[in-house]
Amino acid sequence: MDKWYKCKETSDGVIISSRIRLARNIKKYSFSSAIKKEDAEKVISESRNVIENAEVLEDKYSYMDLQTLSEIEKRKLMEKHIISPYLVKNGDRAGVILREDESVSVMLNEEDHIRIQAIRAGNNLKSAYEEADKMDDLMEDKIEYAFDKDFGYLTSCPTNIGTGMRASFMVHLPYLEKIGHLKNLIQTLGKFGVAVRGIYGEGTEPSGSIYQISNQRTLGKSEQEIMDTLQNITVQIIEKERNMVIKKLETERVVMEDSVYRAYGILTNCRLLTMKEAMSRLSEIRFGYMYDLLKEKKPIHNIYHIMMNIQFGNLQTYAQKELEEGERDEIRAEYLRKCFEV
Amino acid sequence: MDKWYKCKETSDGVIISSRIRLARNIKKYSFSSAIKKEDAEKVISESRNVIENAEVLEDKYSYMDLQTLSEIEKRKLMEKHIISPYLVKNGDRAGVILREDESVSVMLNEEDHIRIQAIRAGNNLKSAYEEADKMDDLMEDKIEYAFDKDFGYLTSCPTNIGTGMRASFMVHLPYLEKIGHLKNLIQTLGKFGVAVRGIYGEGTEPSGSIYQISNQRTLGKSEQEIMDTLQNITVQIIEKERNMVIKKLETERVVMEDSVYRAYGILTNCRLLTMKEAMSRLSEIRFGYMYDLLKEKKPIHNIYHIMMNIQFGNLQTYAQKELEEGERDEIRAEYLRKCFEV
Repeated sequence: MDKWYKCKETSDGVIISSRIRLARNIKKYSFSSAIKKEDAEKVISESRNVIENAEVLEDKYSYMDLQTLSEIEKRKLMEKHIISPYLVKNGDRAGVILREDESVSVMLNEEDHIRIQAIRAGNNLKSAYEEADKMDDLMEDKIEYAFDKDFGYLTSCPTNIGTGMRASFMVHLPYLEKIGHLKNLIQTLGKFGVAVRGIYGEGTEPSGSIYQISNQRTLGKSEQEIMDTLQNITVQIIEKERNMVIKKLETERVVMEDSVYRAYGILTNCRLLTMKEAMSRLSEIRFGYMYDLLKEKKPIHNIYHIMMNIQFGNLQTYAQKELEEGERDEIRAEYLRKCFEV
Repeated sequence: MDKWYKCKETSDGVIISSRIRLARNIKKYSFSSAIKKEDAEKVISESRNVIENAEVLEDKYSYMDLQTLSEIEKRKLMEKHIISPYLVKNGDRAGVILREDESVSVMLNEEDHIRIQAIRAGNNLKSAYEEADKMDDLMEDKIEYAFDKDFGYLTSCPTNIGTGMRASFMVHLPYLEKIGHLKNLIQTLGKFGVAVRGIYGEGTEPSGSIYQISNQRTLGKSEQEIMDTLQNITVQIIEKERNMVIKKLETERVVMEDSVYRAYGILTNCRLLTMKEAMSRLSEIRFGYMYDLLKEKKPIHNIYHIMMNIQFGNLQTYAQKELEEGERDEIRAEYLRKCFEV
């Protein structure tokens, strides 16, 4: 079963992926910040029990205990957005249940007892929601969630109370970023309860012109309303990016081709590449393919997949060894050349 | 008969070419600055007469009158170092006699009545001198030169009095330039009567890390002494460049490979390239081949030949049409990609 990010479509559109996250807590235990270790262990065993014995789940799921994972394995999972830094911080009592294709995961003892996540390539929020909802129903059937009839699902952080849902799109916005339009846009969207963040969420720098657009409010709105709002706003942003690019192409096609081909020439030839530069070159190349400016053959993986693979942790999978800091840029450049040698 | 610069060796070593120039004047006429137009015309007819009727010359020579040459043709000849801006300035009474392989030329009514130039690919000053000397003997046999038994050949500018000879090497010194060692070197060499200049002589900016190293003094020294001094000094400079590069390669090979491959990646992919950037990328690529850092196939012409071909005038030969200023960078990039598609 192929990983969700191997999907071909992820390199074609502005929307790389759609994601739903549901925050849930088990009624009988204190929230994660105050939970006793033995109760935290029960959160894990009870949750595993539900999923591992569920007859309705067709796909293979496996459990990973953070205590037994190496630093590199944890890093790789973070780079793939499967686990969060918060979960790693709770490493002495935390774990994750992961579907084989990595599209559905359940973090245990993160900020909340249970965090269900479903991710889909491309513009597929509804399908991601259905997956998350299926897992949620399954667990709710056996586990009594902390739920209030007025407030909805109760969560560790008040911002998640209500549906406990965060919906998000991962989008690629190289042009709006380049011309400096994103800052204003981010401020405006904030007023509508929509956050735009870097690829690794809150407080991280945007990298490779990839942004997460997500709802901030979950209280007083239905899941459908949250998704509709996010979908509408995201479509508007995408259209803005697209229209501006198309207009620019009318007068400056060669200049834009030049810039894309330079990125391609450097990436496919250089011998040393930092993470920051690699992300930026890959972003330009992705842009080039999207607008048919770049006629070269597409690489072996889609660009977002490559972006994951060149990060420190995942790069070691390619290298098949631990990489010293001094070696990474060289191995990264080598790996990238290989990706484009098709 | 192939042009001298098509020689393969010119892209392999630090010395691109060796050149001898002899300044001569006809005794019976005033120097160029004061010459009457009818006398200037006689300078041309008498010189042409000697060369066109010489039985000893095996190669084909042809005469070009500057009055009948188009602006582009003049530009192309300047870009190839066959004629000088000074000759173009005297265009109403000037001409050039050129050997088919462009290695020997005689400018008529430049700063002096007669300027014989012989050029050879690589480190071949002696052979260049022999060619120039042969032409000089031929003309001196039929024309009475302005000559003083104490001072030697009399020339328009006092710095040329004596042998009237300027010997020069065109060298490629990317590393000394890069690390900023050339400025001091140029000052030091000045004390020994040796000048280091940019690719287009006095007052021009160095481009593509290419320099002309030439003698400044011609009085009180024999031709052999001038050439020996220049040869010794140039060999020392080359060894300095080479030794420093080799030392650097011991510790920073990958960094240098990276830099060379980036230049190659950009040059062979980009869609717009200014003259300045093209020269700089070609210089890095030449350096890469020279030290075996760049493993890609060599281009269709040697790098110095390509450097000539991408200049404004010669680029039109490739384009087969007049190029507007806005088109040049695009055509230059296209031409360069073609050169490396081997």
